[in-house]
Order: sequence, then structure tokens, then C-alpha cells
Amino acid sequence: MQSTMHTSVTTSSVPQPTVLVVGSGAVGGFYGAKLAQAGAHVSMVCRSDYQQVRSKGIQVTSVWGDFLFTPETVVRSVEDYLETPDYILVALKVLPEIDPVAMIRAAVHPETTIVLLQNGVEIETPVAEAFPANQVVSGLAFICVSRIGPAEVYHQDYGRLVIGRFPSGVSNQAQLLGDLFNAAGVACQVTHDVVTARWQKLVWNAPFNPVSVLGGGVDTAAILGCPASARLVRQVMEEVCRLARAVGHELPSTIIEKNLADTLTMKPYKTSMLLDYEARRPMEVEAILGNAVRVAHRESVPVPHLESLYGLLKLVDLRSSGTCSGP
Amino acid sequence: MQSTMHTSVTTSSVPQPTVLVVGSGAVGGFYGAKLAQAGAHVSMVCRSDYQQVRSKGIQVTSVWGDFLFTPETVVRSVEDYLETPDYILVALKVLPEIDPVAMIRAAVHPETTIVLLQNGVEIETPVAEAFPANQVVSGLAFICVSRIGPAEVYHQDYGRLVIGRFPSGVSNQAQLLGDLFNAAGVACQVTHDVVTARWQKLVWNAPFNPVSVLGGGVDTAAILGCPASARLVRQVMEEVCRLARAVGHELPSTIIEKNLADTLTMKPYKTSMLLDYEARRPMEVEAILGNAVRVAHRESVPVPHLESLYGLLKLVDLRSSGTCSGP
Repeated sequence: MQSTMHTSVTTSSVPQPTVLVVGSGAVGGFYGAKLAQAGAHVSMVCRSDYQQVRSKGIQVTSVWGDFLFTPETVVRSVEDYLETPDYILVALKVLPEIDPVAMIRAAVHPETTIVLLQNGVEIETPVAEAFPANQVVSGLAFICVSRIGPAEVYHQDYGRLVIGRFPSGVSNQAQLLGDLFNAAGVACQVTHDVVTARWQKLVWNAPFNPVSVLGGGVDTAAILGCPASARLVRQVMEEVCRLARAVGHELPSTIIEKNLADTLTMKPYKTSMLLDYEARRPMEVEAILGNAVRVAHRESVPVPHLESLYGLLKLVDLRSSGTCSGP
Repeated sequence: MQSTMHTSVTTSSVPQPTVLVVGSGAVGGFYGAKLAQAGAHVSMVCRSDYQQVRSKGIQVTSVWGDFLFTPETVVRSVEDYLETPDYILVALKVLPEIDPVAMIRAAVHPETTIVLLQNGVEIETPVAEAFPANQVVSGLAFICVSRIGPAEVYHQDYGRLVIGRFPSGVSNQAQLLGDLFNAAGVACQVTHDVVTARWQKLVWNAPFNPVSVLGGGVDTAAILGCPASARLVRQVMEEVCRLARAVGHELPSTIIEKNLADTLTMKPYKTSMLLDYEARRPMEVEAILGNAVRVAHRESVPVPHLESLYGLLKLVDLRSSGTCSGP
């Protein structure tokens, strides 16, 4: 089945592109499923869950309503996918041992838009450099979702998306994707400045994710309830704002107060990094802290609090995973 | 039995003062025992181990040779000690909930020298202010020693002391105490500048103690083996040196390199803070980090790495002990 998105003649009011999801974890499974609900032709690359997903699909248990998602095609690796995808949706963890370029290369055609639904800052660069002729759409997911078993995803809370053409600007491909998500009930904001949106998300992620792990496994309420750690959170946020400004992405002056106030009013929250740590999964230390620290060195911006968290998390990672790698 | 230290007539070549040890943990038990071996008349205030110590003394298992220490008097609280001690040896943990002034007041006579064998910086101030007429001797123990059961102390490694009159200078009382320790085989350096010695020890303690806990329970070799945390150690050491200079205690320019080199050559070492954390005992966060951070604020010296460790450790403490207290 070929995409109809590039033609003006279509049988449905919403075009139905082909989407290949790479990364069969909770994020890829959930958002792939939502795109399928909106009418897209969604296939999946599944390694560990291949048999289960192929035989019975992915069961999504969701606060928005449970449903079963049956991908059009399920393949073990991207080399086995023989169509030309309109979109490749990359929902891989950002880890030194995972090379997204190698994992998608075989399915990248000239007309393919590469969508990166991943955490961190400056994570687009390797993909954008490897495929200079392809459009890259960068995206941020604000969601609590986890894989609770083979081919089973549990969507616990939230779910909105912010996506945008990388490095900036508007595009039909980003807009169509946003329309599909919105049609499926996922609030998706299409921005012309997605890099700023990444720095904006880092204002929250850079302090709360590491501190939740390093503080001994604590939620947001505990972190903000202890004056010494609440001060640390604010100082890390200030460093992220300075860093964003240094690379040309000035953030709103109220962003820190707003983040702190919002966090105080939301129910106590365990960060995704803490959930990874507790489940003994690798943490996205490099995407969330390492890349920011490297930007700081490149731009000569002092970020001592960020560096402290980075040094400690690398050590925790060393103990959990037995390696102390990092770019 | 009254002390003979203030008389020139004595039956032994080494004067035999009376010493009251307050704090019946491993440090107090061990060094009290060594003073008794040198001939001092040593009594102990024991709360939890009172019955055991009174009936059978303290069993010291030591790399220097095992021995049994039988205090002259064992009391449940300082109020029950009716003699006039030449020395009160305070070997209490430095914790917000422990008030050394209240715990020794009843036994402090005009001629009593108060010896503080405790961790941290600026820990002498409350005692010196509460007893302005008494001499305070401040001391640092470089030792691996732990309480392995009621009235049982295990001396695993090291053991040297640095002591000196507080805030500075020489005194007969400090010298006599040093002579007693040396007579018992404890290498004890008597310094005229003990406050500088405290800052010097903090150069090692401020990074390694917190990082060993926050890094997920790691020893010195692991900390220095990971480039990101080794860098953090160095940055914390630099801040401690700047802080010491700001309060008039300039440290040798080679101290950081020497500390790092020495730590790399010694066998992998678990810090006392990590041992406390693993045993779910309270950690000396305020003595080792809190006081240093407060000095930094008072003197307007930026210490962002120290502050980061402090904020995180307070949070860990909150989780372990259920409080987030602190001066």
C-alpha cells in the first residue's frame, strides 16, 4: 500500500501516509497506535516483541480508553521493510550504545520525513547530518507511558506533543503529522521553533530527572519540599536558561517561576529517569545532561550545578551498567 | 582518684590525667582505650551499652593487636560522673539533633580541657562559646573504626591523629594529650594551627564522602575511575581551597594533586559517610558540607559544586531519616 499524501486526490478528508515506527517501547507503541487510529498506515520494527506483536498486536491500556493496535506490517529489522515510508517515527532511547542512523538507514528514501520523538537537546544533529536531503521533524512527548509486558503498553497520564521542522520553520509534513495526532485525540502543537521547545523542556528535565535519582529515589514533592534541593533545582534551571540564551534560544523570563509553580501544584511525580533507574534500565544521562554540558563547554558558559549532576549520574550509571562511557 | 597532671610530683614519668569520654561509639571507645593503655584514668559515659561496658569492658579488635579496655568508671550520663576531669574527650557525631554543650555541661569544671575529636569545619564554635573560660583542643582522627556490637569495637585501618589548641597556638594540655597518644602507639601530631588542619582534611572529605553516597555507593577507585566524577572531585577540592583561603587558612598549593595521587595509590576505600548511609545511620552532612556552605555564604565565595552535593545529600538524608532539618 502506497502513501497518498503527496497527491491531491484522496478518498478521505485526512491523507493517509505510511509510517514506520522504529523503537518498539512504550512511546513508539503508543504514538504509532494513535496515528493508526487516525487512519495512517503504521508498521513497526520490533525486535524483542516481534512474535507477540505480529500475532496479536499491541494492547494499549490508557487513561484515554483501552484499545488494540494492529500494525499493518511487523518486521524484525528495518531491512525487512520493503515499502517507502512517508515518515519514519524514531522513538528510541537516546543512549551512547544506540545508533539511530544505522537503525533507520535502510528505510530512508528521498521522500521520507524522519521524525525524532526523543528526549534531550542537540539529539537531532547526527541524523540531520547523516541524511542531509531528508526533512527532519523533531518532537517532544509529555507523557507517562510504560511497557508493562511483551506487546503491552500502559498509558498512565498526560500525552501532549510538540513537534516542528528541524532546525526551524514550518512544513507540510510536520503539519500533516500534527493534524493526524490531533485527529486521534493527542494534543499536538506544531511549532516553527522546535529547538527552543527542547531547551524549554530541559528547564524541567535537567534538574528534576537527575535529582530524583541522586536524591535517593524521590518524587517532585520531596525535591521541592527540602529547601537545599529546591535551591539546587532553581540553580540548574538558571543555568539551562543561560545556556539556551548562549545558543540563540532565549527562553521566556517567567519560565523558572512557572515551572516551579506548576510542579508544586501537580500531584507528586516520579520522573522517567527515576523509573528507568528503579527498573535497572539505562538512563538518558547523555541526552539530558551530557549534551547540555558539552554545549556549555563549546560556548564557554559556566554550568557548575549541571556538571555536578552529570558527574554523579555518570557514576550511578557506571554502577548500574558497568560502563562509564559517553561521547 | 584525682589527676596528678597539675602537680610536678608524680610517680610515673608520664602524668596520669583523668579523662571522661563522651560518645561511646567506635572513635570514643578506641581512643579512650588507647589513653588508658598509656596510663590515663579513663571513664566513659555510655547510654546504650551501659550494662555491657560496666560488666565486661570494651573489646577492641584491632589491626594493631586486640585488647580489652576496662574504664575506671562507667556512667549512664555525665551528671552521674562526680569527679573533676582533666579532659573531656568529645567523640560524638556532629548532627543537628546532638547538642554537645548540653551533653558535657555537668562535668565541665574550670580546669577541664575539652577535646573535640569530631569531623567537619567550624564545629568548635558552639562549645568554645558556651565555655569561654575552658581550653578547647580540637582534633582530627584519620581512622577506619566501627562498632560491631554492644561494647565491641573493630579497628580496621589507619589511626593517626592531629590535635591542637583551638583556635590556634600551643598548650601544655594539648602536648600532654599528644604524648599520651604517642606513648600508646597512636601517631599524634600536635599542631599550632588546627583550624587549617580541619580545612586540609575537608579537601578530601568534602568530595569523597558525598560522592561515594550520591554516586550509588561507590568506593574511591570507582569515583576516580570515571572521568566525569573525577572532574567533580577536583572542582569540589578547588572550592574548599578557595574557601579556606577566604577565612585566612591558605592551604599548600600542591594539596589537590597530592590528595588525588594518594587516593589513587591507596586501596579502594569506602568513606565513613557511605558506611553510615549503608548502615542507615545519620550522615554528618552538616559538619562536612553544611558548615562549609554557610562559611561560603558568609564570605561571599561561590561554591556551586559544594552546594550541589549539599542539596542532594540533604534530600537523601530526608529520605533516610524523614526529616530535612539543618541549622
